[in-house]
Amino acid sequence: MYPNWLVQRAKLTPDRIGLSFENIEWTFKEILEEALLQAGCLLTAGVKKESRVAILSSSHPQLVFGIHACLQLSAELVMLNERLSESEIHYQISDADPDFVLVDSKYKDKVIGTGKPILSWDELKELRPEEVKVELEWPSDRTITIMYTSGTTGFPKGVRQTVENHTTSATGSAFNMGVSPDDVWLCTSPIFHISGFSILVRSLLYGMRVRLYQKFDLAPIVDELTAGEITRMSVVAVTLERILSELERREEKVHPNFKTMLAGGGPIPSDYLNRAFAKGIPVLQTYGMTETSSQAATLAPEDAIRKLGSSGKPLFLTHIRIDGAAGPNVEGEICVRGGNVTPGYVGRNEERPAQIDGWLHTGDIGYIDEEGYLYVVDRRSDLIISGGENIYPAEVENALVKHPNVREAGVCGVDDTEWGQVPAAFVVLNCEVREEELMDFARTVLAGYKVPKAIKIVNELPRNASNKLMRRRLTEYL
Amino acid sequence: MYPNWLVQRAKLTPDRIGLSFENIEWTFKEILEEALLQAGCLLTAGVKKESRVAILSSSHPQLVFGIHACLQLSAELVMLNERLSESEIHYQISDADPDFVLVDSKYKDKVIGTGKPILSWDELKELRPEEVKVELEWPSDRTITIMYTSGTTGFPKGVRQTVENHTTSATGSAFNMGVSPDDVWLCTSPIFHISGFSILVRSLLYGMRVRLYQKFDLAPIVDELTAGEITRMSVVAVTLERILSELERREEKVHPNFKTMLAGGGPIPSDYLNRAFAKGIPVLQTYGMTETSSQAATLAPEDAIRKLGSSGKPLFLTHIRIDGAAGPNVEGEICVRGGNVTPGYVGRNEERPAQIDGWLHTGDIGYIDEEGYLYVVDRRSDLIISGGENIYPAEVENALVKHPNVREAGVCGVDDTEWGQVPAAFVVLNCEVREEELMDFARTVLAGYKVPKAIKIVNELPRNASNKLMRRRLTEYL
Repeated sequence: MYPNWLVQRAKLTPDRIGLSFENIEWTFKEILEEALLQAGCLLTAGVKKESRVAILSSSHPQLVFGIHACLQLSAELVMLNERLSESEIHYQISDADPDFVLVDSKYKDKVIGTGKPILSWDELKELRPEEVKVELEWPSDRTITIMYTSGTTGFPKGVRQTVENHTTSATGSAFNMGVSPDDVWLCTSPIFHISGFSILVRSLLYGMRVRLYQKFDLAPIVDELTAGEITRMSVVAVTLERILSELERREEKVHPNFKTMLAGGGPIPSDYLNRAFAKGIPVLQTYGMTETSSQAATLAPEDAIRKLGSSGKPLFLTHIRIDGAAGPNVEGEICVRGGNVTPGYVGRNEERPAQIDGWLHTGDIGYIDEEGYLYVVDRRSDLIISGGENIYPAEVENALVKHPNVREAGVCGVDDTEWGQVPAAFVVLNCEVREEELMDFARTVLAGYKVPKAIKIVNELPRNASNKLMRRRLTEYL
Repeated sequence: MYPNWLVQRAKLTPDRIGLSFENIEWTFKEILEEALLQAGCLLTAGVKKESRVAILSSSHPQLVFGIHACLQLSAELVMLNERLSESEIHYQISDADPDFVLVDSKYKDKVIGTGKPILSWDELKELRPEEVKVELEWPSDRTITIMYTSGTTGFPKGVRQTVENHTTSATGSAFNMGVSPDDVWLCTSPIFHISGFSILVRSLLYGMRVRLYQKFDLAPIVDELTAGEITRMSVVAVTLERILSELERREEKVHPNFKTMLAGGGPIPSDYLNRAFAKGIPVLQTYGMTETSSQAATLAPEDAIRKLGSSGKPLFLTHIRIDGAAGPNVEGEICVRGGNVTPGYVGRNEERPAQIDGWLHTGDIGYIDEEGYLYVVDRRSDLIISGGENIYPAEVENALVKHPNVREAGVCGVDDTEWGQVPAAFVVLNCEVREEELMDFARTVLAGYKVPKAIKIVNELPRNASNKLMRRRLTEYL
């Protein structure tokens, strides 16, 4: 059993600021009041206790209150990525089968036709709240969030993240990077991602203020970093680079109060690390995924140059091993174990085991050196990481072959100075069609960031003896 | 499951200093090496894996290595208080029934006659080590330590503290007071107490250096506090006062790096709090006990004056309620719940339940005010806290009535400027005996700090209608 995070936090430090957005601040007590009020409205709207609720929303305080309102009703949250296309969203809703869908008004159209009751935040607030009975404790294995992540098949899987998963993750992170009662975490990461959601969890467990931004707004964010209130932030390579460029342009450094920049979504180029060092930014590179409820390993800033390209060492409550590797420096599948690892999936993958003998087999290839540092050599299934978003080639290929003129498709990542990587597609046709038409088609079925930067028509795709697509050889076609 | 604390810590930060004593430092890797070496010697000496090992030792690095050596063999540690009398130690050994007793050479005589194999640290190091097979994980419910605490009956009970108990305690403490990778905790508390042992646990979980002292040595300790390396320390009222007096004499403040002074063993007088504030010492008053594996509640420094006499609020992973109290400010028995609460006892109390519906009934009386702050009104069974050591009146009474001339005895605490409280005894005689003889007798059967400061001969003891001794009325006899 764990304490009800928000209720316990509001009891312990009611008057501490827990959230700020633009010029408004909320104490933990006020966040709880908002959450209970809205939980009452959810009951009025017909949301039952312990039901499953999908949320499609931008990152604003209303989303935070809505999340906490659902958690006070012991609901399981299906966190939908607002960048997904309508058909992708419909797939996830149909798979997770939520009892209710909560949305920003602007996204209402995207979920109509799913057959689920829909309520916008604006409509919710108009309701007259019923009374909510507060639980003081939550069972460790209760599902807090369900987040979709794609796999080798190209069909996204709904990953469960429990109370224990999130708590273990926040604890391991605290033991590694430290925590202070006056920490303030700048959150520009999407909350529907584990990178953003985990900041909300840490906020409650640590009693830490979250400074929330709806999106990555460069100028005000750099203002914040130089002002002295912010102590922690999460970035991906592309956002780190923008911050660095802006600091360089201004000839400024971050404020000395700033303690850690947690950088996920693949390794950070050494050029960025050197520039970050010059700007007083301690960068902690991290390896993690939805299935590990945020960080599994992190690299300490003092090791960043010496261990360039490494993702560091596991968090204290987590184990990492390389499957089948007899010793150091031998490549194999990266396996993760610990209280932060998901117990499993929902929907059509419900029966699929997430662990084998307690170990998550990530599908990623890597090795551990003689000092115990993890190096990720190849992300699972040729994963493309573009501006911190995961793109699975299989998913893009599946979308392209839906076009009647396309017989086969192959997708790989190509380097991009801004986004790290972007997807490029290669197609074999049934009958002639212009590249622009294929591009238009891709835009209707895929989230914007998944749409290939280029679609090239080729005569055949590189395949191995057993006819398996060799995605890594696709770049030779460029 | 949790990671093997020391093995995981040595893997993550092998080269960080984990322990220093006088002019010697040990990295976490070196601590593990020492522990494994000595674990091998313990095997040679005949200690089996998963056995129970009692330890009677002063606080020096060898004790730290010895503890870790035993834990690498999955042993349960019975931590004996070195201030106990021989008969008290024999009682605890007979009750816990360990397979082995490890001692400082100087204490060997105290444990002879217990019928248990005895080994001194010096003898241990002479042995040729066998090979030790390391476990990477520990089950949550494994007993790490057994510590004796007295109760209403006067017979000390052996309290189990599990992996989960210690881990939860360290986590809750980190979420409350913060933790930083460069923290250094000054340990002058005895390691056989939970106050000292919990510092060793935090060291492994946080990756934090422990600066160890064998005893409370005022001048060098104040030197440390003003030098800047030390960031945390645990004290009781009497040691805090000595530090304050010395700082005042020197006209110095503690170094600004110093973050928290954790003060246990009863409330701190407001005079001390004001003086600590003037010296730059943030005092966190705490309420906890052996059964809660250290802190259950703590009072933030900013509340120390406003909430004078309070023990603060629970740690994040702990709940506190007042049994039977319908609302705030109503007195009743303090009950504690959470992962830090002991699952139970050993020896003759093995069958005794430690929890009722998950709640530990502490026997202490207190109330919670309308803002959620705990006030401890009366320690269980008229507990006397003298310089941070618990003295149970019943235990002292039981010892005194063993004298043939004593018919009845009553013991209570009286205020003492140096120790907070000291025990005073009142006896009804069978036949005449001098007070000095009774005092000499008490010294042979009781630890020095439990020996009454005065033994007064009276005609009768104050008893209620059901003939129960009313200890609180004893002070009227003074």
